[in-house]
Amino acid sequence: MKKGLLLVLSGPSATGKGTVCKALLKKRPDISLSVSCTTREPRPGEIEGKSYFFKTQKEFESLIEENAFLEYANVFSNYYGTPKSFVDAAIEQGKDVLLEIDVQGALKVKEAYPKGVYMFLVPPSMDELKNRIRSRGTETAEEIEARLGKADAEMKLMHRYDYRIVNDVVDEAVCAIEAIITAEKLRVFRYEEEIRSDEI
Amino acid sequence: MKKGLLLVLSGPSATGKGTVCKALLKKRPDISLSVSCTTREPRPGEIEGKSYFFKTQKEFESLIEENAFLEYANVFSNYYGTPKSFVDAAIEQGKDVLLEIDVQGALKVKEAYPKGVYMFLVPPSMDELKNRIRSRGTETAEEIEARLGKADAEMKLMHRYDYRIVNDVVDEAVCAIEAIITAEKLRVFRYEEEIRSDEI
Repeated sequence: MKKGLLLVLSGPSATGKGTVCKALLKKRPDISLSVSCTTREPRPGEIEGKSYFFKTQKEFESLIEENAFLEYANVFSNYYGTPKSFVDAAIEQGKDVLLEIDVQGALKVKEAYPKGVYMFLVPPSMDELKNRIRSRGTETAEEIEARLGKADAEMKLMHRYDYRIVNDVVDEAVCAIEAIITAEKLRVFRYEEEIRSDEI
Repeated sequence: MKKGLLLVLSGPSATGKGTVCKALLKKRPDISLSVSCTTREPRPGEIEGKSYFFKTQKEFESLIEENAFLEYANVFSNYYGTPKSFVDAAIEQGKDVLLEIDVQGALKVKEAYPKGVYMFLVPPSMDELKNRIRSRGTETAEEIEARLGKADAEMKLMHRYDYRIVNDVVDEAVCAIEAIITAEKLRVFRYEEEIRSDEI
């Protein structure tokens, strides 16, 4: 069976990864969103195995030791990680899996899955990104400065991605991702077995 | 100005390159078809600069010496060649240029234009290709055998292309090419100057 694609949607914070991701999944129910593991408490309405796989700290640390994560991070004393098994199983079943993930995480995933499709979401302009970060209104001037610096640094990692998608109009970004999915499925290197076996 | 794409549509004979090419150009008048030079006589209705650039043998051979062709070949004592100047001018003007060309020619072009988009058209199956070649009815058994052998050998060069497009339904092949064009325009390596200049 033809393997599914690993689709990685990444980019600096405030570029709208979450919004684009939701719109894509709504339009394309054939794509599976990768479900992360976390040690944080479930919030009302969150469903085990759908929102997250909820783990205790001890369970999570065992999984780290077992090398069960494609990438993980500790944010405000809670672990978040992408379980390898979920992604592998879906891909083997021929399903396309979407990962919405920060720049550092995406580049870690790329080491393990070089055949994944790495998409970098950018704002229409750096000024626009700065406005978006500043207008959140929940952070101190210092926190905003730190975020802006981080966004600048992350923009410099774009060259390690495959595609650059401008998130100006969400629907257009979704159409761009759909075209990328169609094109990636036609890439010759995904037919190596067929080529070796001399079939079409 | 953003450069245009060099789109190269290739594949073994009888895979329907010409048909797909025509259907694509009809749907996408924004794409320019590369016009070849030839030394053969114009046929009724053929237009200089549109069907071909018609050249004398002497003119053609001067152009060869001037290295003016991306690739050229001599078929039944007539020269056919792809002029570099036409392709370069269109790409510089931001136009996407389509080359419909045989496998040997396409791989020569790839040496000069590694950033081109190399698409390999395949039939739904090798049996189907063999039927198509046999049913042309204009060739001797020997010519057919030669063509079949050539098609087999050319199929083995698919791995040097970027994309593999099955030509079963022409409209679907055209949609596939359109998705490839959209995706290729989003590839990060086409934004190197921006990345260097630190802009989005």
